[in-house]
Amino acid sequence: MAYQKGAGKSVVIALGGNALGNTPQEQLALVKKTATSIVDMIDEGINVVVTHGNGPQVGMINKAFDEAHAVTPGVPEMPFPECGAMSQGYIGYQLSQAILTELKRRGIMRSTATVITQTVVYPDDPAFEHPTKPIGSFLTEEEARQLALETGWVYLEDAGRGWRRVVASPRPQRIVEFDAVKDLMDDGYIVIAAGGGGVPVIARDDSYVGVPAVVDKDRSSAKLAADLKADMLIILTAVEKVAIAFNTPNQQNLNFMSVEDAHRYINEGQFAAGSMLPKVQACLEYLDAHPSGEALITSLEQAAAGLRGETGTRVAVRRTWPDPPILSDPQ
Amino acid sequence: MAYQKGAGKSVVIALGGNALGNTPQEQLALVKKTATSIVDMIDEGINVVVTHGNGPQVGMINKAFDEAHAVTPGVPEMPFPECGAMSQGYIGYQLSQAILTELKRRGIMRSTATVITQTVVYPDDPAFEHPTKPIGSFLTEEEARQLALETGWVYLEDAGRGWRRVVASPRPQRIVEFDAVKDLMDDGYIVIAAGGGGVPVIARDDSYVGVPAVVDKDRSSAKLAADLKADMLIILTAVEKVAIAFNTPNQQNLNFMSVEDAHRYINEGQFAAGSMLPKVQACLEYLDAHPSGEALITSLEQAAAGLRGETGTRVAVRRTWPDPPILSDPQ
Repeated sequence: MAYQKGAGKSVVIALGGNALGNTPQEQLALVKKTATSIVDMIDEGINVVVTHGNGPQVGMINKAFDEAHAVTPGVPEMPFPECGAMSQGYIGYQLSQAILTELKRRGIMRSTATVITQTVVYPDDPAFEHPTKPIGSFLTEEEARQLALETGWVYLEDAGRGWRRVVASPRPQRIVEFDAVKDLMDDGYIVIAAGGGGVPVIARDDSYVGVPAVVDKDRSSAKLAADLKADMLIILTAVEKVAIAFNTPNQQNLNFMSVEDAHRYINEGQFAAGSMLPKVQACLEYLDAHPSGEALITSLEQAAAGLRGETGTRVAVRRTWPDPPILSDPQ
Repeated sequence: MAYQKGAGKSVVIALGGNALGNTPQEQLALVKKTATSIVDMIDEGINVVVTHGNGPQVGMINKAFDEAHAVTPGVPEMPFPECGAMSQGYIGYQLSQAILTELKRRGIMRSTATVITQTVVYPDDPAFEHPTKPIGSFLTEEEARQLALETGWVYLEDAGRGWRRVVASPRPQRIVEFDAVKDLMDDGYIVIAAGGGGVPVIARDDSYVGVPAVVDKDRSSAKLAADLKADMLIILTAVEKVAIAFNTPNQQNLNFMSVEDAHRYINEGQFAAGSMLPKVQACLEYLDAHPSGEALITSLEQAAAGLRGETGTRVAVRRTWPDPPILSDPQ
């Protein structure tokens, strides 16, 4: 069995929310575009593991069950970890189908495998004391206080739009299905894994238990890439390059950022929390564990060009780009 | 990488609805029991691929989205194939977690992998002209007629309980992820695949497209077992043995049924449609494609004993049981 691996690099690609869309219908159209970009890389011999976010999707699933459970007999409460596993199932199904279709169209004899993924987190992760990640529906303050009493869940006011349940975003310690992802990659599959960062589980008395939390998908991707010793971690986002002095007259789009630069920029507050900051931090976590690797932050559209060194922001311990251009080019 | 395969047989086990329960909470408890039975077999060196039904689960997901979509802005309509993929994600997550936990508890160095599965069906399958499989909520006749007009979907009256959407149950032609399942099994993983029969897809102009249908999970399991050349197909159900003259004073529980016997019993109408009949038919499809295999129908509790030849109803081309007991024993 097994397929012929590509001759090129091994790459973990983390898809951002903009690669998926907000509804299943939007998503089905967008994943076709995403699949084209991914298969462009496969066409060049790259071995790809695809990871993806699930923010809007898991929110929607959670909301659908919340609402339906409230009004419909026979619709049970759906625990949050199960909602995460559902989102992996349906996003993985769509991605897998779209990539397979594109492989077939180009006559590439490779196949895909979507692996439902759990991510081990520590129960004493400090993140559990300060849940920050909003999930589910908007509520009134009264509803939120009542539910908090009944369930012990934490609710916070969300930017004037109402109250929402918040969960922790603990650090990924281990990808439970790592071995399967690695073996499938080595057998030439395009693997889709660690969707939504993986369902967070804690290892308790020899058993795994799902916890209502969200593992940042870029950090899980960094962990997966480091453990796989992948040549590259690509984090896709809405912009082509990382910028400093963002949205000012002095904005500089970066072609390259050393680990040292990245730490300095972070200390200077150059990157927005909840936006570019966690992406840069994920790159640093990957490079810390796998210093000979290269990270790349760019847009979905530019992913294949970025891989060839033509665009995007590369992050590495030392500059090793084939044809190093200037450090930053104002555009 | 890769794990050490067991020294024993390769077996596809199709879990019935009673191995899963109707709500996620029920399911989480039941899958622990299921995992114990499965790991009993793994403990004896058996290499297991687990498949499962998803009737209640996909119905529940479909219903939750139907209801929430009707009353809540921001909850999209969820296509039926995506509901199926969701059910694979969350059932697979729970099964995988429970099996991993049980493996860990017994110190067995094996791992699990849940693979989201698509099943190719033919667009001209006659089943599409006579949809029979009820899904989703109960409606009034008026609601059903209105929706039928709007959507083109088919609705049927369901045993006096109201009107429900019905979809086709076409024959599985090919498991899209077959190679990944085989490679993972060969690498020593306990693979969970073809959940709910797999999401039915048609191959159209070189692309795969999901269709609202349900592939019988026992038939998909039979196809998977035949393609894997698995030594055994085990179909788990609520009873320990298949019976003829069922629920009469002359009921006979069968230890063994040859392919010839099975065809005769089917012609005699011994097996109920929608119940034992499709299970026996799935066994015959597997044996037709892989005549040296053995099929076994028994209960979850008796699965390990059945594998050892101690109970259950075995179906095979010829009797090859290690210690053939009497053909049927009335109990």
